[in-house]
Amino acid sequence: ILDELLRWMPKEAPIVLDVKRSDIGETQKAYAKAYFENWDVDAVTLNPFMGYDSLAPFLAYEDKGLFLLGVTSNPDATELMTQPCGDAGTVFDKIQAMCTRSANEPADAGLVMGLTNLTPEQLNAVVDVPLLIPGMGAQGGSLDDLDFSKRQAPALINSSRSILYGSSDSSFASRAQQATEKIEAVLSHE
Amino acid sequence: ILDELLRWMPKEAPIVLDVKRSDIGETQKAYAKAYFENWDVDAVTLNPFMGYDSLAPFLAYEDKGLFLLGVTSNPDATELMTQPCGDAGTVFDKIQAMCTRSANEPADAGLVMGLTNLTPEQLNAVVDVPLLIPGMGAQGGSLDDLDFSKRQAPALINSSRSILYGSSDSSFASRAQQATEKIEAVLSHE
Repeated sequence: ILDELLRWMPKEAPIVLDVKRSDIGETQKAYAKAYFENWDVDAVTLNPFMGYDSLAPFLAYEDKGLFLLGVTSNPDATELMTQPCGDAGTVFDKIQAMCTRSANEPADAGLVMGLTNLTPEQLNAVVDVPLLIPGMGAQGGSLDDLDFSKRQAPALINSSRSILYGSSDSSFASRAQQATEKIEAVLSHE
Repeated sequence: ILDELLRWMPKEAPIVLDVKRSDIGETQKAYAKAYFENWDVDAVTLNPFMGYDSLAPFLAYEDKGLFLLGVTSNPDATELMTQPCGDAGTVFDKIQAMCTRSANEPADAGLVMGLTNLTPEQLNAVVDVPLLIPGMGAQGGSLDDLDFSKRQAPALINSSRSILYGSSDSSFASRAQQATEKIEAVLSHE
């Protein structure tokens, strides 16, 4: 099915595969090859829980993008991701540090920041890190109170279910278009 | 390929699918259905980083097994998993608490504990939680210094690459058998 979907995609559309992979290096090497070589997608999401060496096989592809789970959009994301961790800071701070290992260089990886849990403080802490922001459509997250004007790196605000499942009958295409236009209207008012 | 492999498996062999999945509830529901209904495997591994609600759709299958990543076998597992976290204890302690939410009941989920990082203290802390222990073969982990005699729940010690890739020539089957027997010998001396 993924093969078929990818063949249908217009060539100019960037493709982010939301696979949230985590594994030991040897296995990640095989996953990275599958996504970045066989399927040739532009970016993937990764779960950074296993540590930096689990990300390395993906970081080796310099022309491809990565988004590490920072604080996700589900209610229990705060059980671990926002907790104090180690000598100072939080789990999220440690994930953020994995994105930028070389000082004074652009980030090697971006972050997934769920809109339903994203605070103004977190957003300010990552102005120079690319963001993938889910949670706006079916999950009910809002852009209110968030200031995107200071950002130095792109933020990709995605909505999946509200567009994909706009309708299950034959009006599918027009409903998907309506949902897309509604979201574009919200984003262009920002 | 997975379809074909599962058809080849002897019916009496328990199947643990090492997928390390993590996602929001709706997506996990679809993954759980694929693994536990379509493929009908006995257990899966999950990455618990996103919190308890990301595990719930899998926990709903009461006759199936789960292993949450506790401390994995890769070197950087200690970057997050063994760090102090929250008010008391470590990240690992929080994962362990996700396995047993009902006091005085058997654990709802097991833990993945990589042999290369597993300490006697960690092993003693989880005598009543089922364990999946990778890292013995190609990764070079050892059972020395670990006491399995007090365990009240099963420990599944697995070796993948050392058996799967015992040889790439036509001696594949006999080399795989030799590797299996070597590991069985180590385990039976425990």
